[in-house]
Amino acid sequence: MKNIKIGLFGFGVVGQGIYQVVSKAKNAHAEIVKICVRNPRKARKIEVDESLFTSDVDEILSNPEVNLIVEVINDAEAAYNIVKTALLKGIPVVSGSKTMLARHLPELIEIQKQNNVALLYDASSCGSIPVIRNLEEYYDNDLLLEVKGILNGSSNYILSRVFDHKENYDDALAQAQALGFAESDPSFDIEGYDSLFKLVIITVHALGTYVSPDDIFTYGISTIHDSDIRYAREKGVKIKLVAQVVKVSDEHFTMFVMPEFVSPSKYIYSVDDEYNGVVIRGECYDRQFMFGKGAGSLPTAASILSDIMARQHDYRYEYKKLRFLEKPTYTTDIRLKIYVRFAETNVLHILNFEHICEEYISEESNYVVGEIMLSDLIAKRRQLAAKDIFLANIPIFFLNQDN
Amino acid sequence: MKNIKIGLFGFGVVGQGIYQVVSKAKNAHAEIVKICVRNPRKARKIEVDESLFTSDVDEILSNPEVNLIVEVINDAEAAYNIVKTALLKGIPVVSGSKTMLARHLPELIEIQKQNNVALLYDASSCGSIPVIRNLEEYYDNDLLLEVKGILNGSSNYILSRVFDHKENYDDALAQAQALGFAESDPSFDIEGYDSLFKLVIITVHALGTYVSPDDIFTYGISTIHDSDIRYAREKGVKIKLVAQVVKVSDEHFTMFVMPEFVSPSKYIYSVDDEYNGVVIRGECYDRQFMFGKGAGSLPTAASILSDIMARQHDYRYEYKKLRFLEKPTYTTDIRLKIYVRFAETNVLHILNFEHICEEYISEESNYVVGEIMLSDLIAKRRQLAAKDIFLANIPIFFLNQDN
Repeated sequence: MKNIKIGLFGFGVVGQGIYQVVSKAKNAHAEIVKICVRNPRKARKIEVDESLFTSDVDEILSNPEVNLIVEVINDAEAAYNIVKTALLKGIPVVSGSKTMLARHLPELIEIQKQNNVALLYDASSCGSIPVIRNLEEYYDNDLLLEVKGILNGSSNYILSRVFDHKENYDDALAQAQALGFAESDPSFDIEGYDSLFKLVIITVHALGTYVSPDDIFTYGISTIHDSDIRYAREKGVKIKLVAQVVKVSDEHFTMFVMPEFVSPSKYIYSVDDEYNGVVIRGECYDRQFMFGKGAGSLPTAASILSDIMARQHDYRYEYKKLRFLEKPTYTTDIRLKIYVRFAETNVLHILNFEHICEEYISEESNYVVGEIMLSDLIAKRRQLAAKDIFLANIPIFFLNQDN
Repeated sequence: MKNIKIGLFGFGVVGQGIYQVVSKAKNAHAEIVKICVRNPRKARKIEVDESLFTSDVDEILSNPEVNLIVEVINDAEAAYNIVKTALLKGIPVVSGSKTMLARHLPELIEIQKQNNVALLYDASSCGSIPVIRNLEEYYDNDLLLEVKGILNGSSNYILSRVFDHKENYDDALAQAQALGFAESDPSFDIEGYDSLFKLVIITVHALGTYVSPDDIFTYGISTIHDSDIRYAREKGVKIKLVAQVVKVSDEHFTMFVMPEFVSPSKYIYSVDDEYNGVVIRGECYDRQFMFGKGAGSLPTAASILSDIMARQHDYRYEYKKLRFLEKPTYTTDIRLKIYVRFAETNVLHILNFEHICEEYISEESNYVVGEIMLSDLIAKRRQLAAKDIFLANIPIFFLNQDN
């Protein structure tokens, strides 16, 4: 067994969890030799030898003893610089920075190849649920048709409080923040960006294609109203914030992040509170469901530990699917059925519905249910933003596939 | 990409599924070059070039073109001979034979090491759910505390029919057989042996220790009565056939297969019909749940395909946990709380209850609920067998662990 000497970047909630988990895992043969933080003298909840801390990035990156970088800092740009520098120096990296990864994966994959060095990041998507590793190693064939799930714990916690416990949105959000599920700036979670970045990373390992986050339709839950909840309840469904990547034909796949009406027969219907749940659908095996704690200090740290231990055996992602001969390409040229609730803004002046199935007008609020091209939603993103509108996907068949 | 040339042993339900799946997976670069069956001239449901078939084992094992053996035959002894011979010749093997593996794993692990050759068998446990691979590669650390689940689809299908659909046991069994979930001799499934063999394999990869199937308490569902169903319903629980391996302290783990009263708050409560569900519990990440189709032609074949593709990258199990310095050892010296329903046989004359919590006597049937040592249940196995007795585990805390 080789000894793993870790240089850790970041000592927030996740970094402290990693410190605890690595100390506990005796068979990991791993040790944290240096921790880089902004302020080494900051008071911390857990007791750590002060000499471990540094604020100098180079004290880790130029330390010949360090044979693994673990990077769990919030600042995506700083994370990118650290990870890139380490990889260029040939030092393997375990990272949890989804924003950074979703923005820079193509370059970081190329650097891994050029420098024959590993970058692992299972913790970046769904914390302790091994989604990336399974997509890379186990569902590594042509049979995969869809990955769909609840990837963000904070927004799911809020929806569970609002929906199942009949709290109002602001109370639920405050409670999520008090419990540490939501960041002090919650827009990252509730506007769907956290789910989006995870979906971008998942898609690289699911179908072998990188799609820029900017090209993917993303709509969050911040504008949800009582009338939306009521509508969903009347239909016997729950509203969940769902991220999905779906093969719509042999040649094409689509992907988006959107609130969705989820019926009780679906696996993700029962994914409540801060939990994550992912459905992997394939030819032959139908649907598989993975469920667990997607975030939090120790669950995320446990996932990081799995990546650290994978380095004991020189594991790296092979990105096999990127080299597949017959890969589907990304399309937004698909028809969705959506529900749109609106007040002052008449959405019918914004959105080009191809077919309208329901229309409801009242003094309090209005809604329309209709079919629309995903490309139209993307084109109208700016016009939809920051308006008193709520939008949700109503799952239909894409071609002859049940979603 | 190297081309994988497969010699396939067995062309029953699973073998035919493998043939279909391998033909479909264009990116696998795999091809079946020979199929060994007992009777090459037997009529088959799917059309296959007759020249592929042989009844001569050596025509595959001595074929220099074959670089992977896939073995999915029912006869455990024949499977053992084929797998052992192949490994001794240095040919890697993918196997789905749980009985064979559960009986011979220690020897086969040793042969793999001596001959530097791979034996993969994810399909042997829970079909398309990647339990073995995840235990080996992802939950490969000290944090794992428990693996517990419904590992047998046939018995679960029967229990679902009996329990949720109020059918009687014989009708449900007949239906399971008609649908192909249960073998013509169903005792393997319903007496718990299928679950047992899977549990033995899982435990090797969960905790790094092989325990002989003969040393593990196994009790099935064939003696279930209406009064047991009624009792469970009154308590608001379902009866499931559950296999589990649990760390009960830092030094010890226990394992058994037994019907269990499962309350609605548990993940496995919702695992119905022919589905499998596995809960992996660990320090830090709490419980993770994996759910899917555990058996059947194509789901099992999809799992075999994952193992075939793993050979593209020379993947093999490292059996890391077998080398752990601090491994818990197997104990049956733990106290269980069980329900025992009996008619003529007075179980109080057989079993040494340490404490009796409930006792019920009626003209129709009697039951007792009490605490008993697992070692006593093992000692009394013969006396319990083939009697009008039904026994179920009532989950309690082992030490301070919630089960």
